[in-house]
Amino acid sequence: MVTETKTAEASLESLHRIFTVPEAPDSTLGKIEQEISQNLNRFLQNHIAATDSSLTDIEKDFSNPLIPEKPTFVSEHTEFLLDKLVAQSVHTSSPRFIGHMTSALPYFLMPLSKIMIGLNQNTVKIETSKAFTPLERQVLGMLHNLIYDRDDPFYESWMHSAEHSLGAFCSGGTIANITALWVARNAALKADGDFKGVAEEGLFRAMRHYGYDDLAILVSDRGHYSLKKSADVLGIGRQSLIAIPTDENNRIRIDKLEEKVAELKAKNTKVFALVGVAGTTETGNIDPLDAMAEIAEREGIHFHVDAAWGGASLMSSNQRHKLKGIERADSVTIDAHKQLYVPMGAGMVIFKDPSMVSAIEHHANYILRKGSKDLGSHTLEGSRSGMAMLLYASLNIIGREGYELLIDQSVDKAEYFASLIAEQPDFEVVSKPELCLLTYRFVPESVKKAFDVANDAQRGLLHQHLNDLTVFIQKHQREAGNTFVSRTTLTPVHLDNRATIVFRVVLANPLTTKNILQEVLEEQRALAKQSTIAYPKLLELAEQILN
Amino acid sequence: MVTETKTAEASLESLHRIFTVPEAPDSTLGKIEQEISQNLNRFLQNHIAATDSSLTDIEKDFSNPLIPEKPTFVSEHTEFLLDKLVAQSVHTSSPRFIGHMTSALPYFLMPLSKIMIGLNQNTVKIETSKAFTPLERQVLGMLHNLIYDRDDPFYESWMHSAEHSLGAFCSGGTIANITALWVARNAALKADGDFKGVAEEGLFRAMRHYGYDDLAILVSDRGHYSLKKSADVLGIGRQSLIAIPTDENNRIRIDKLEEKVAELKAKNTKVFALVGVAGTTETGNIDPLDAMAEIAEREGIHFHVDAAWGGASLMSSNQRHKLKGIERADSVTIDAHKQLYVPMGAGMVIFKDPSMVSAIEHHANYILRKGSKDLGSHTLEGSRSGMAMLLYASLNIIGREGYELLIDQSVDKAEYFASLIAEQPDFEVVSKPELCLLTYRFVPESVKKAFDVANDAQRGLLHQHLNDLTVFIQKHQREAGNTFVSRTTLTPVHLDNRATIVFRVVLANPLTTKNILQEVLEEQRALAKQSTIAYPKLLELAEQILN
Repeated sequence: MVTETKTAEASLESLHRIFTVPEAPDSTLGKIEQEISQNLNRFLQNHIAATDSSLTDIEKDFSNPLIPEKPTFVSEHTEFLLDKLVAQSVHTSSPRFIGHMTSALPYFLMPLSKIMIGLNQNTVKIETSKAFTPLERQVLGMLHNLIYDRDDPFYESWMHSAEHSLGAFCSGGTIANITALWVARNAALKADGDFKGVAEEGLFRAMRHYGYDDLAILVSDRGHYSLKKSADVLGIGRQSLIAIPTDENNRIRIDKLEEKVAELKAKNTKVFALVGVAGTTETGNIDPLDAMAEIAEREGIHFHVDAAWGGASLMSSNQRHKLKGIERADSVTIDAHKQLYVPMGAGMVIFKDPSMVSAIEHHANYILRKGSKDLGSHTLEGSRSGMAMLLYASLNIIGREGYELLIDQSVDKAEYFASLIAEQPDFEVVSKPELCLLTYRFVPESVKKAFDVANDAQRGLLHQHLNDLTVFIQKHQREAGNTFVSRTTLTPVHLDNRATIVFRVVLANPLTTKNILQEVLEEQRALAKQSTIAYPKLLELAEQILN
Repeated sequence: MVTETKTAEASLESLHRIFTVPEAPDSTLGKIEQEISQNLNRFLQNHIAATDSSLTDIEKDFSNPLIPEKPTFVSEHTEFLLDKLVAQSVHTSSPRFIGHMTSALPYFLMPLSKIMIGLNQNTVKIETSKAFTPLERQVLGMLHNLIYDRDDPFYESWMHSAEHSLGAFCSGGTIANITALWVARNAALKADGDFKGVAEEGLFRAMRHYGYDDLAILVSDRGHYSLKKSADVLGIGRQSLIAIPTDENNRIRIDKLEEKVAELKAKNTKVFALVGVAGTTETGNIDPLDAMAEIAEREGIHFHVDAAWGGASLMSSNQRHKLKGIERADSVTIDAHKQLYVPMGAGMVIFKDPSMVSAIEHHANYILRKGSKDLGSHTLEGSRSGMAMLLYASLNIIGREGYELLIDQSVDKAEYFASLIAEQPDFEVVSKPELCLLTYRFVPESVKKAFDVANDAQRGLLHQHLNDLTVFIQKHQREAGNTFVSRTTLTPVHLDNRATIVFRVVLANPLTTKNILQEVLEEQRALAKQSTIAYPKLLELAEQILN
């Protein structure tokens, strides 16, 4: 079995071999290894199929619920994986796939990942992670320093303190946001007199003890869906995550926020968290963090900043000012697997005050003993891998200046793309890039003219047909497999607050060129004309309006 | 920088290079890659330092909170990582390190991990994961089938259905347990009349709507600490996780469980979840799942089985009967990174009823749209990696029969070790292995004799000194770095329910030999005699008692 003996068979001897003896380098797996080491991009280009198969077709290959009784040869199974899985996966690192937040990865992370996985540490406790524990604490310290810039004695005191934590490494932004709001909830409903705190006694008793009628978390209506999930999980309820309207730049309206805070206070609702968004997922805009911090400080509300995507921009002294006020946040979410360019599965929440995590401290008999430095006593997750190592290596090898260049060029590219779109007679920018994310859509010239003279009902119809056309183009573009943009639905102020489907691009991949951006527009223009329903309808309607 | 040019420098050109051009194979990183590919065990043996440095010493190398301004050469940083991180990590895969649940990994997972990381899929949505979505659904189906053994039409209907899910892949058992209890809580406090359900309206309103005075989750007093964390996060409160006493084999006492259920009903407390443990973390015992299922069914309580560690034993037809009743659970937690032998970060929760996940369904505008098959609409985490691929490959390559052999030999080895310990004049088994986990301690011959004649106060003193000695041995054994066992504190019935510190071993590593087990006892015996406090005190006390 398993090692390439004559027949695949389950025997203790052959099983022992798979735990010790690797295959020869001329085996299928050995060849793949070499191919990836030599050129990952080429490997992906060679093995990921260019055109899209339907999901229903792919499902046929992944439909057997039976665990195979008998072992399979490694080479045989590897061929299957190449043919059915790798070929039908998404080329997330392609410079032509600019629709999501996953970019190409630095090559050195491939071999380092292999070391990490081979070491197979469990960072829940020191016993199974040793140096990975101080390393992770240092990484959290580096990010803390990036956000809060405290002095050396601060880090000397807290970075490696058993009872403290500058943050938590986790699988991603969702867990990071849940952790931050968990801390905020527990701190707001902490032990008080006879009441042992919400962690111990639960929400029902906490509410009765404190005499609140309700709880609330406030965030702009562009907040990430993980916040709704957090409100559900934490027992607050999704309806208590209250969405504050945004302005024409997708930023929270401070006047509306003030109104809501006053209204909720009058209703005896405890606002225990205010969430600022630093890089909305759909438009990339950043809330006025300073003004939000002001309100949070005045009202004694936990101020959390969801910078899962935008946080990486703190690396650039040219972009940093856009996140002004983040240093006043009580907690910040940053995903390293977004624009810090490490592989999937590296989220972080950073806490301004190192003792904040005491609100969520847990202990056990056999690990996480009081006074131990086990990371697990302050994290939502238990067993975890040593992912922090990959971020650590990237921070060291690329350096802050390297990151600054990467971030700056992504913003430059987005600005270039926005002006390229604006120059086209038949495209329009819907949301301008604040960092490297923007949205736009295809609007035929005659339709643009029609908008100028259309009445409200006609404008509505035009929007509707444009939405259909945008969906058509995006779907066909994805299926053709040459380039990829994503789509979402916005309600832009300058487009009458109407539900507007747009193309969404994130220009984080350093290998994306201006040429590629031009090609994307050309391809979309060509695809529009292939639409046999939306496009003709749209032109017809425009003609009617114009005549 | 980064690629081995003459000086490490931040320039766009050199940055582009790190996203495209790997180093030559004769570079430091290239050499490491080869070394790992040829023999991972040898690489780890060569690079992990044999003896233990103090954590305080290690921390010195990981104390700078500043992100370096300038880039570093890859080779230079790799040398640092080898020297300071790898050397000071824990050799979790060593056959001589039998104190934790992390075993050696099959060699084929190294190159496959590299493919997974290189592909960098995000399984939150199909758009960034494509075939990884049906693959993950199939893996969940395979595990569902392993537990529940439903017929083909069942899997044809539900495995790939957008509105359903047979489970959720996640980073580990803690998230799996939280997810299961989240589902249970939301189902128990679901929408009803005007009440929109706890997910929407929160716990406070839910409790008032349903008129309960309190909520409760029941589990044996050997339940994993993640359940307390779950109770906290979910707003139930840790005190509402109620521990039921266990019998002399660390299994929940059904009589005590019945009593508690009746008591809570009388108090208008809603018991919404009962948790069975299939493989306790500290002693490896399995609750009487059938009898628990009986009660849960009768009372309409969600029955969850935490089989994070023990679930893998379902693979063996020789062990399966020990988990009888698991097929009646509403949900089951299984960690693939434990005895399914895949790398850290692979947990799962499996749901008997595929529509159960509707209780935690979430949607968003740009992904997870209603009707999409995006995995993220039914998981606690958002962005996630393609880890399911590694389990998929292992299930195929090793096969059920291969896993059966691996599981069986681990149980055999534990039974061998238990009898070996029992044969020694100066050791005693504290908890016998039900699967491959057991606990024991060192007890000098004269102390054993003293126990037979000691009065209660003397027995207490003997236990106390034995505890000190066990801690001494375990610590020095770990520091010497030759072998490793873990320790925990139990309160065994046959040891007067006294807090008893024990050695804990998990014999999952297929490379652990009988010889190694003999050496572990010899080393511990020798270390005991090096104790200048606990050991002499103990002998003196025994002598006093015996004379």
